[in-house]
Amino acid sequence: MRILFVGDVVGKPGREILRQQLNEIQDQYHIDFTIANGENAANGTGINKRIFEEISNYGVDVVTMGNHVWDKKEILDFIDHEERIIRPANYPPGTPGKGWNIFSVNQVKIVVINLAGRVFLPALDCPFQAMERILAEIKDLTPNVIVDFHGEATSEKQAMGWYLDGRVSAVLGTHTHIQTADARILHRGTAYMTDVGMTGPRDSVLGTDKDLVIKKFITSMPVKFEIAHGDIQLNATVLELNKQGKAISIIPVQTMLEAL
Amino acid sequence: MRILFVGDVVGKPGREILRQQLNEIQDQYHIDFTIANGENAANGTGINKRIFEEISNYGVDVVTMGNHVWDKKEILDFIDHEERIIRPANYPPGTPGKGWNIFSVNQVKIVVINLAGRVFLPALDCPFQAMERILAEIKDLTPNVIVDFHGEATSEKQAMGWYLDGRVSAVLGTHTHIQTADARILHRGTAYMTDVGMTGPRDSVLGTDKDLVIKKFITSMPVKFEIAHGDIQLNATVLELNKQGKAISIIPVQTMLEAL
Amino acid sequence: MRILFVGDVVGKPGREILRQQLNEIQDQYHIDFTIANGENAANGTGINKRIFEEISNYGVDVVTMGNHVWDKKEILDFIDHEERIIRPANYPPGTPGKGWNIFSVNQVKIVVINLAGRVFLPALDCPFQAMERILAEIKDLTPNVIVDFHGEATSEKQAMGWYLDGRVSAVLGTHTHIQTADARILHRGTAYMTDVGMTGPRDSVLGTDKDLVIKKFITSMPVKFEIAHGDIQLNATVLELNKQGKAISIIPVQTMLEAL
Amino acid sequence: MRILFVGDVVGKPGREILRQQLNEIQDQYHIDFTIANGENAANGTGINKRIFEEISNYGVDVVTMGNHVWDKKEILDFIDHEERIIRPANYPPGTPGKGWNIFSVNQVKIVVINLAGRVFLPALDCPFQAMERILAEIKDLTPNVIVDFHGEATSEKQAMGWYLDGRVSAVLGTHTHIQTADARILHRGTAYMTDVGMTGPRDSVLGTDKDLVIKKFITSMPVKFEIAHGDIQLNATVLELNKQGKAISIIPVQTMLEAL
Ligand SMILES: [Fe+2]
Ligand SMILES: [Fe+2]
Ligand SMILES: [Fe+2]
Ligand SMILES: [Fe+2]
Ligand SMILES: [Fe+2]
Ligand SMILES: [Fe+2]
Ligand SMILES: [Fe+2]
Ligand SMILES: [Fe+2]
Repeated sequence: MRILFVGDVVGKPGREILRQQLNEIQDQYHIDFTIANGENAANGTGINKRIFEEISNYGVDVVTMGNHVWDKKEILDFIDHEERIIRPANYPPGTPGKGWNIFSVNQVKIVVINLAGRVFLPALDCPFQAMERILAEIKDLTPNVIVDFHGEATSEKQAMGWYLDGRVSAVLGTHTHIQTADARILHRGTAYMTDVGMTGPRDSVLGTDKDLVIKKFITSMPVKFEIAHGDIQLNATVLELNKQGKAISIIPVQTMLEAL
Repeated sequence: MRILFVGDVVGKPGREILRQQLNEIQDQYHIDFTIANGENAANGTGINKRIFEEISNYGVDVVTMGNHVWDKKEILDFIDHEERIIRPANYPPGTPGKGWNIFSVNQVKIVVINLAGRVFLPALDCPFQAMERILAEIKDLTPNVIVDFHGEATSEKQAMGWYLDGRVSAVLGTHTHIQTADARILHRGTAYMTDVGMTGPRDSVLGTDKDLVIKKFITSMPVKFEIAHGDIQLNATVLELNKQGKAISIIPVQTMLEAL
Repeated sequence: MRILFVGDVVGKPGREILRQQLNEIQDQYHIDFTIANGENAANGTGINKRIFEEISNYGVDVVTMGNHVWDKKEILDFIDHEERIIRPANYPPGTPGKGWNIFSVNQVKIVVINLAGRVFLPALDCPFQAMERILAEIKDLTPNVIVDFHGEATSEKQAMGWYLDGRVSAVLGTHTHIQTADARILHRGTAYMTDVGMTGPRDSVLGTDKDLVIKKFITSMPVKFEIAHGDIQLNATVLELNKQGKAISIIPVQTMLEAL
Repeated sequence: MRILFVGDVVGKPGREILRQQLNEIQDQYHIDFTIANGENAANGTGINKRIFEEISNYGVDVVTMGNHVWDKKEILDFIDHEERIIRPANYPPGTPGKGWNIFSVNQVKIVVINLAGRVFLPALDCPFQAMERILAEIKDLTPNVIVDFHGEATSEKQAMGWYLDGRVSAVLGTHTHIQTADARILHRGTAYMTDVGMTGPRDSVLGTDKDLVIKKFITSMPVKFEIAHGDIQLNATVLELNKQGKAISIIPVQTMLEAL
């Protein structure tokens, strides 16, 4: 099975490059199943139903989220009914939505899990304990398991990769919006990458207008952020899993769409 | 001029791969000048005179530091006299050592600056203001200026890259110990890379024994960290500057040394 | 000279208790000069011209601010012209408003300074260095100097108290919204108190509706905060300074206004 | 039942004032049961068996801990066998020691619980969820329940106070080392105080030599901290509970022991 995972999709530019390039990339890599992190899909913060459906229409099968999951409060109107949105599993019991779900791809089952890191980020339940609970639940369902670990600290993400090595198919980091150059298959067959990167405006600070972010750093005053313009990048990674759910390959992908 | 910048050298394994491979890499890329981040060179935390000299002997011309700069207090015995160690320039006035220095490479001058980020890291003076002061001082000295921005947050590093675009030759990130896949030349000629990565044990969490770090995350109890064993990686980047100090190319480098 | 310093005034309830009780308290303690921290005066976040004038009319001579200083962007319209608003002095050079100012009270001069802490709060310039610069500027102006140190960490506030002991008349903490029971005069004559406390809704979490804050902690989801209702408290402290600007006494004040 | 709760005991000075004054205070307030926070009892960081026994001999019945619980690793040798040490209950399952325990005081049962906050402190399990689990376990044991909530942020502590109002006898904050002036009984009978304060060197920064802490803030360089000398303070609070486990009164206590 070949899986495409697309890094944090930021605003309209992020959706635009999906619209123009996603199908082509899927064809090129013979993709069976596509996951995209959508926590920034709606104007940089959160997602709503319209934008979820827009992304789905471009060919995304499942959308994972992160610390921005609740930024658009309309998500509460549909997250409980929408099987294809996964929010961090280590929110406390009773949280709307689901932290993992199981999908069918050509008769094969695959589980997608979203986790949020706690280092340099707000307190949540322990992502390591959360994974133990989920692994117990999905034990007999399928060996194909993709984890989107949405975290800031490289240490926490690498630790999670090794912690889950041999127990899931892949641990893919998101949130920093910068693709890392460390994609590999760990000793026991888990594909790992500290961050898949960002899909959105390229000449920016993490997707945001760079001059506004610089102004914020220099002045320490409030600045209203806006999505940047110009060239657009797509950051993703392609996984190939064998029948046992082990990763055979992990290939980082970067494409661009030049501004008109 | 061709410059090699080596990402955070961690402990004995980091020094060992420098010993075995640095000269070869320098030859291969026709390197004129070599900088290495040495904040983790002495057993993972800090540096001392013996280890500074060891690294120098392997072919490192200048050592930059970071948040671990003072971890080995012996550094205070020699940092004021050693021209080739640069600590973050945004420590307050009166701090031992220097935040930048100028070097000669085949009759050409080059300035090396070290800065520390403040996002998710302890308070220091503003790195943007510090750069303004340094740029004023070095205005007439040379256009060849390499900045090692030692920071955690991708936003702060990208912002600094754009802030200095056209005013320095390169802004190279360090500290996260994971090489990023975003090396590029910005619009006005500054080479940029969010993180050059880590030079040390590969099957590890940032150089540290992975089982110890996992134990720490799972138990929240104190764990004595140790440098990991096994395969060693070298992460670096090669810059080429033109006569005007603009970057012509930036090429990430990753090599490995297999455990015996 | 007798000075009243009122802890963070929160929203309409905070202003209401000022309206009803401030003059009475001023009379009771023979107050010559009144300072209030107003960073939460406008609906809990920031201040605007109308509310600044409202507070002034109740008898406040000078308003100090804190991390919420810019929350109401209307402040930018008048802070540069308004002599009686002081924002943290350790914002970078070029920031609107002023970090200290000098006032006349019955022919006596008094300087009021506002500083922001950096521990557990966003990066700013060093408050200790900022104080050195201000002390140099005001050296020959007056010995009467009141510092509102707006900070989270008790360590940073106590350290500032001792650092300025004998060099200013008082170091009064704000920001935590809980009055501390450690008011005292330090060895060299500086009055000190880690936090003056909060002036606003009493049955609340720092002035905010308690059920909303509890919901936030339990769910980790976004919650729209609202000012609490019910009984109102006023937290303040009374300083008496001698002719040399040394503190003779510091007396914490707590009053209440029962809900109708 | 009358209970004395002593705020964080810091090092030898903290123990010395307990030795000289604890019995006297117990007599004066007719104390039946004494709890002390001991996370800083051994030279400022952690506790060991000898020092635990020393404090017990002075009249402390139960010792609660906090973020420094594991600083002296000898605690691991005896915490599992020692019924009278309580460490934060929101460490993950499997952590050595216990997060609560039940004691007998003149035929009356009392439960003592220790919790750690997560705001501005390292990640742990949720203290609110932990309390729900403990309250379910102790439901039929006794209505007398004392919670030491060891936290930094005033918001988290106040929220916990209101959250547990009517369900425990008292929520007493520790960790900031500064006594707060907000002791009260909440609407449903729970005694509350944001911080009980610190028992140790008075002319200090939280118990530490003030010049060393100032040096740390000014230089941002590593400084080896030492316990301060001179006058010693004891910070505590006295609770009176009725037969139903409701608080009848909460009285802050501050005493001093002058340096010879
Ligand atoms: Fe994101
Ligand atoms: Fe994120
Ligand atoms: Fe490092
Ligand atoms: Fe570092
Ligand atoms: Fe405030
Ligand atoms: Fe504040
Ligand atoms: Fe403590
Ligand atoms: Fe503590």
